[in-house]
Amino acid sequence: MRLASRLDNLGTETAFAVAAAAADWKARGNEVYPFHLGDLDFPLAGHIVEAMNKAIADGRTGYCPGPGIPELREALADDIGGRRDLQLDPAEITVMTGGKPVITKFIQAVMNPGDEVLYPNPGFPIYESQIEYHGGVARSYRYLPTQDGFRIDLDQVRELITDKTVAIIYNDLQNPISAESTDQEREAIAQLAQEHDLWVLSDEAYFEMRYEGESRSIASLPGMRERTVILYTFSKKFAMTGSRLGCAVAPPDLSKVFGTMNTNDESCTTHYVQWAGIAALRGPQESGQETLRTLQGRRDAAVELVNQTSGMSVQTPRSTFYLFPDVTEAIQIVQADGLADFAEQALHHTGVSFCTRNHFGRPQPGEDRRYIRFAYSGLPEDRIREGLTKLRDWVGSF
Amino acid sequence: MRLASRLDNLGTETAFAVAAAAADWKARGNEVYPFHLGDLDFPLAGHIVEAMNKAIADGRTGYCPGPGIPELREALADDIGGRRDLQLDPAEITVMTGGKPVITKFIQAVMNPGDEVLYPNPGFPIYESQIEYHGGVARSYRYLPTQDGFRIDLDQVRELITDKTVAIIYNDLQNPISAESTDQEREAIAQLAQEHDLWVLSDEAYFEMRYEGESRSIASLPGMRERTVILYTFSKKFAMTGSRLGCAVAPPDLSKVFGTMNTNDESCTTHYVQWAGIAALRGPQESGQETLRTLQGRRDAAVELVNQTSGMSVQTPRSTFYLFPDVTEAIQIVQADGLADFAEQALHHTGVSFCTRNHFGRPQPGEDRRYIRFAYSGLPEDRIREGLTKLRDWVGSF
Ligand SMILES: Cc1ncc(COP(=O)(O)O)c(C=O)c1O
Ligand SMILES: Cc1ncc(COP(=O)(O)O)c(C=O)c1O
Repeated sequence: MRLASRLDNLGTETAFAVAAAAADWKARGNEVYPFHLGDLDFPLAGHIVEAMNKAIADGRTGYCPGPGIPELREALADDIGGRRDLQLDPAEITVMTGGKPVITKFIQAVMNPGDEVLYPNPGFPIYESQIEYHGGVARSYRYLPTQDGFRIDLDQVRELITDKTVAIIYNDLQNPISAESTDQEREAIAQLAQEHDLWVLSDEAYFEMRYEGESRSIASLPGMRERTVILYTFSKKFAMTGSRLGCAVAPPDLSKVFGTMNTNDESCTTHYVQWAGIAALRGPQESGQETLRTLQGRRDAAVELVNQTSGMSVQTPRSTFYLFPDVTEAIQIVQADGLADFAEQALHHTGVSFCTRNHFGRPQPGEDRRYIRFAYSGLPEDRIREGLTKLRDWVGSF
Repeated sequence: MRLASRLDNLGTETAFAVAAAAADWKARGNEVYPFHLGDLDFPLAGHIVEAMNKAIADGRTGYCPGPGIPELREALADDIGGRRDLQLDPAEITVMTGGKPVITKFIQAVMNPGDEVLYPNPGFPIYESQIEYHGGVARSYRYLPTQDGFRIDLDQVRELITDKTVAIIYNDLQNPISAESTDQEREAIAQLAQEHDLWVLSDEAYFEMRYEGESRSIASLPGMRERTVILYTFSKKFAMTGSRLGCAVAPPDLSKVFGTMNTNDESCTTHYVQWAGIAALRGPQESGQETLRTLQGRRDAAVELVNQTSGMSVQTPRSTFYLFPDVTEAIQIVQADGLADFAEQALHHTGVSFCTRNHFGRPQPGEDRRYIRFAYSGLPEDRIREGLTKLRDWVGSF
């Protein structure tokens, strides 16, 4: 039976292949250290589970409005607005089944076939997939390593903009590379967006996953709110990845469109999980702070060991839960045949499992350094130390 | 800011306007009898809630596979296959956030822009919306009233099929009209699908919402399995509408596509809700049977009162939880100006709120009878009696 042509342009997260290889290696009786997954190993906080159960007991188990229940939209407007110096109206909030649905719904709402959309590469792989799936032209911009972390190559961004460019996807506090914009960089992106009348998808999944400094949103800059959609998620801060709860913050007209898309695509987001979300936002914040402290300890342990490894180096990111070390020399040391072979050898010699740069978009011309990504959010500090010590010693044994 | 042109073709469920009017009338201090919603007022069964809490306590709160957790896919293959005489493999099951997502994902997977898709009208409004949104041509087929319920106008279906037709959407046990295929009708649809090499979306949302007789799936007919996608949902049978849990049953290649779509669109369905789904399928079945008995009582009460109302008549459906009475004469009796005016007058004079035929697709040329839809699943029998008695007496007062 024939399938539709649009499927030829549907990408995916190839990181699932890494997860499968790790699971297979483990099933064969080997110890595995899973650094490949951007997931968290923290339990759902008690008050969040309680709120969900109370909602179920109160009969909040039926269909609810496509854009989300009013109480959650209000709590989100308060919380997201409060942290960004924005006075948000609940009408600007559309609840979704996680942050990810914001990507496809944004693309569908602002991009016609043939339009061009800029996106970060390396970056979250669904950007590229969704732009191309819906008939757009995906134009990737790069980051440049500096003494002080990665910087967006703004010259490249400028060169990429054409008459057909309708949007730029911007992921401050970046997955996979943990880049963080300076104020100037963020303002430069904002200025380009205004000059060229672009929509901005500001992926703020890690806005609150920060150990030092303060996060700022591009939506708070003058003239940006009316052209910016914020991707917000409960996944990371509240360790609610499997709960599937997030939202889009968008100008009211676009919010209405998102609500109608929800009605078409899935009716609504799980009703009682929305009440759990209210408890997460309005309830005690200690468990979130505790999570951050724990992650910071993991980060420090991981950074230390990575930098003890021959031919690997990484700076200490101030946010997210990823390290994106340069492993160009380490690959040479172990005489691996590129990134995929390096990852496979590392798994088989040390049990350490990770994604590489190639899982985050098609490599760009001229890339000469090689990177991998460690997600340190899914395993405790002692296991991080154990795994990365094995990795260090293995590379050191050559 | 400019939005994409595809949004011009995005429809919605206009029934939400009815819900809003009812809520408004209630807020103004009036009694309202909500017959407009296809929702259920039954609590989530205890063992389902317990299984969800156990999953949460066991740490099943992280991301899980895009196509669903293996244990649920297996339980679904067993249950859905067992009830349809099909030996299903878990690889044929893709878990989704309800039954509704199957509609958009089916359309995206089998229809190119310009292709034609047949769909029932009156019917679930999202069919028409999604066909047109994704650039297809929506061709509606009608039902004809008979002495023994509604029948698909098979001659019309035959006439509608062209070289460009790629799929037919088929909703045996139909919303809104409660039509139910004879074996011959189902076989005729299957034969047409095979003759013209069509995909079939078999919307089986109400497969188990049946008071008499036995449901059969078009997928079980010879030659149909490889061209049929079954829409399955936990919403109705287990009163889990707000939980958002369902699945597609599809040939393995297409299942793989659905899994990749999930990875792109929402990563996965809420992890612990999937464990609740396993408990629903494998646990005690008494509450589901109890629900059906209760609904049958409501059906009988509603049918009785509708048929006592001047100018209204309905046959007793053996399945679903909708009545679709012919109200052509009742409209004349109360001198209403068409369906919308009739609905508004009924709300304001009796508090009875309902959808009309016009909420279920654009009326077809030549329709001369007028219908409304009562959903009797959301209010107890005494309230059904109270509301429909007021309606009967109001129409009777002219
Ligand atoms: C950059 C980025 N955006 C969005 C998401 C979406 O997460 P979710 O759908 O769980 O909210 C993720 C998750 O890993 C991410 O890393
Ligand atoms: C015919 C039909 N199909 C599909 C659905 C989808 O229901 P859900 O998404 O809750 O599974 C419904 C719900 O009312 C329906 O009536």
